[in-house]
Amino acid sequence: MAETLMIRNARPYGGASADILIRDGRIAAVAPPGLAAEGQEIDAGGALALPGFVEAHTHLDKTLWGMGWHPHSAGPGIADKIDNERRVRREIGIEPDRQATRLAAQMLAMGTTHIRSHVDIDTEVGLAGIEGVMAMRERLKPVVDVEIVAFPQSGLMIRPGTLELVDRALALGAEVVGGLDPCAIDRDPKGHLDAVFGLAEKHGRPIDIHLHERGEMGAFSLDMIIERTRALGMQGRVTVSHAFCLGMPDIDHVRRLIADLARERIALATTAPASAPAPAVRTCLEAGVVVCGGSDGVRDSWNPYGIGDMLERAMLVGLRNDFRRDEDIALAVDVCTHGGAKVMGLADYGLEAGCAADLVLVAGESLAEAVAVRPRERTVIKRGRLVVRDGRLAVPIA
Amino acid sequence: MAETLMIRNARPYGGASADILIRDGRIAAVAPPGLAAEGQEIDAGGALALPGFVEAHTHLDKTLWGMGWHPHSAGPGIADKIDNERRVRREIGIEPDRQATRLAAQMLAMGTTHIRSHVDIDTEVGLAGIEGVMAMRERLKPVVDVEIVAFPQSGLMIRPGTLELVDRALALGAEVVGGLDPCAIDRDPKGHLDAVFGLAEKHGRPIDIHLHERGEMGAFSLDMIIERTRALGMQGRVTVSHAFCLGMPDIDHVRRLIADLARERIALATTAPASAPAPAVRTCLEAGVVVCGGSDGVRDSWNPYGIGDMLERAMLVGLRNDFRRDEDIALAVDVCTHGGAKVMGLADYGLEAGCAADLVLVAGESLAEAVAVRPRERTVIKRGRLVVRDGRLAVPIA
Repeated sequence: MAETLMIRNARPYGGASADILIRDGRIAAVAPPGLAAEGQEIDAGGALALPGFVEAHTHLDKTLWGMGWHPHSAGPGIADKIDNERRVRREIGIEPDRQATRLAAQMLAMGTTHIRSHVDIDTEVGLAGIEGVMAMRERLKPVVDVEIVAFPQSGLMIRPGTLELVDRALALGAEVVGGLDPCAIDRDPKGHLDAVFGLAEKHGRPIDIHLHERGEMGAFSLDMIIERTRALGMQGRVTVSHAFCLGMPDIDHVRRLIADLARERIALATTAPASAPAPAVRTCLEAGVVVCGGSDGVRDSWNPYGIGDMLERAMLVGLRNDFRRDEDIALAVDVCTHGGAKVMGLADYGLEAGCAADLVLVAGESLAEAVAVRPRERTVIKRGRLVVRDGRLAVPIA
Repeated sequence: MAETLMIRNARPYGGASADILIRDGRIAAVAPPGLAAEGQEIDAGGALALPGFVEAHTHLDKTLWGMGWHPHSAGPGIADKIDNERRVRREIGIEPDRQATRLAAQMLAMGTTHIRSHVDIDTEVGLAGIEGVMAMRERLKPVVDVEIVAFPQSGLMIRPGTLELVDRALALGAEVVGGLDPCAIDRDPKGHLDAVFGLAEKHGRPIDIHLHERGEMGAFSLDMIIERTRALGMQGRVTVSHAFCLGMPDIDHVRRLIADLARERIALATTAPASAPAPAVRTCLEAGVVVCGGSDGVRDSWNPYGIGDMLERAMLVGLRNDFRRDEDIALAVDVCTHGGAKVMGLADYGLEAGCAADLVLVAGESLAEAVAVRPRERTVIKRGRLVVRDGRLAVPIA
């Protein structure tokens, strides 16, 4: 497993050409060209070197990747999608381990080395999703790091029995307490959030809550999340995913909420949706809020789009936020790399000596060009091991 | 030039497998597999066949494609971008013929067979852009059809001398009268629109006006365009590009404007911007308005994004309009194919027998999957000739 690799002629973040020496799964040196030969040589051919992408919000357990094309059949609302998904799951059979493996392999091929996946828990599927993704996580440990959010997709309080299942999932090994739409779906914001924060306290785990609620309703739920984070000393341990309400027109209210998020060190996960209000990424970053990015569902009953490419996500973040300057496009890439690493609490993430050797090589004259073109022939190193060469898996993934 | 091609195992629009026989630059037959052998055989391997993409709004003359990466340096506003562009043009030298050739070749490789390009005219560049793109158009005639809009990018009335240059461009061979932002840039909506419609009348040409103006200002300009279209009998000959104002919150006003556009057969061109208000594509189509799609600038001083891929544009149209069902994603593809063909007045466009043999083969189980994945290894036939094979140009382009 522990190999020594010498990557020649790579350009960290699109800067000057460098040699990157990797030993025992870590970056041993990043230096101007000319390091003494050691280990297996890889000629990057002037490609950019970036730390492995961090897919900080996805749903590995329910993708249809590799199952043939299934036309989207859900109605437009969130509740429509939840109901439709339960129906689709019954009809076509989505084996979580197999499906999570397929999508994780695709993400890896696109340069992602770390994944936070929400995994459905409800009274119908029980813990099958959690167990499947845990099995996949164990098997794929050498090539990708996966963090599991115990996610009550069909509601927590509104479906009796779900809370106990989430509790068991956390005991089993899911690392993060999930939640969603305390008002709009669960119809009981106090009950929902007390339960979510209660589980976090009981298990000593962080929280990641889906918040699709828009406008003042979403702001109300967000405010209740902020209150609990402060009261329970959960600063730096809470992420809010989507947070569409931060795209509402009342910018004074939005600015107050963003200041509160920064103060309580609550992070945001965004897909940068083009058809929904969304947090303004630059405004959030400037206020000191950590922002990470994610594909959300990839080819599942929620969303037909996506190839699990975080460089494409960086483009979508850029387009959504009108990022045109190179330094702004670099912010979009930062969301899809370091932002996710902060949310996942990766201590040794980056391209400096001493960091874990998780990196991706992709052609491009500049970081911005790599985002604009998104070449798919990437080379990926995971913990010092060459796992993807020119877009193709170089290791077996069962 | 006139070859006979037999494409085996292609699926028109993602439907059942078919043989497509091409003779003398036209589709001679589309039939279930089993046509008698004739001409050069191409095995499409089950790929989708689509009519060649129509890039209905771009700026070939000022792309920086192939000139190395130039960081974006413009301020956020439209006027900032106009001023910055004039500066960049002076500093780095953008040869219109060479640059238009490079971008047209890239677009062709991605499956585009028809392009409507706005080409800058102002008192500094004069007609150099028009002449350059006309030269390129003549040279590339065998592989791509290009229509030129005489476009007063820096203002028409506000820069004396520009009107006369646009007049000369139309006499030289530009097919369409361009305009932009009658209020916000030209500061004289009556003067601007009287001039644009006057040139259209004088030369017997259609019109395509950039309208970035938002909200009520844009609605006012749009209303003046509608008035003149009706008064001058220009129905079916006017396109409004961008029309951000149709994304304004006052939906009753928007619906009235859309009904007026439909009545006067005024078409819309959209990029489906994620960071600006935009026309709701389905609402416009349902009202009977023709909608076409475009990349707008590709890697120029306005926009660093883009690879000239209309399948990527279809994805962006889909994402912007929350199109998730296959039939909705098909609408996005229609915007990027038949919508553009209607705007460009292409009489023999399509995949039926008798149509011009302009088509693209792209892998995908369904049309929606092709949009989601956008494989880049496409095969393109232009006027019956194999011009791109697996994403690489198969003919010389000087």
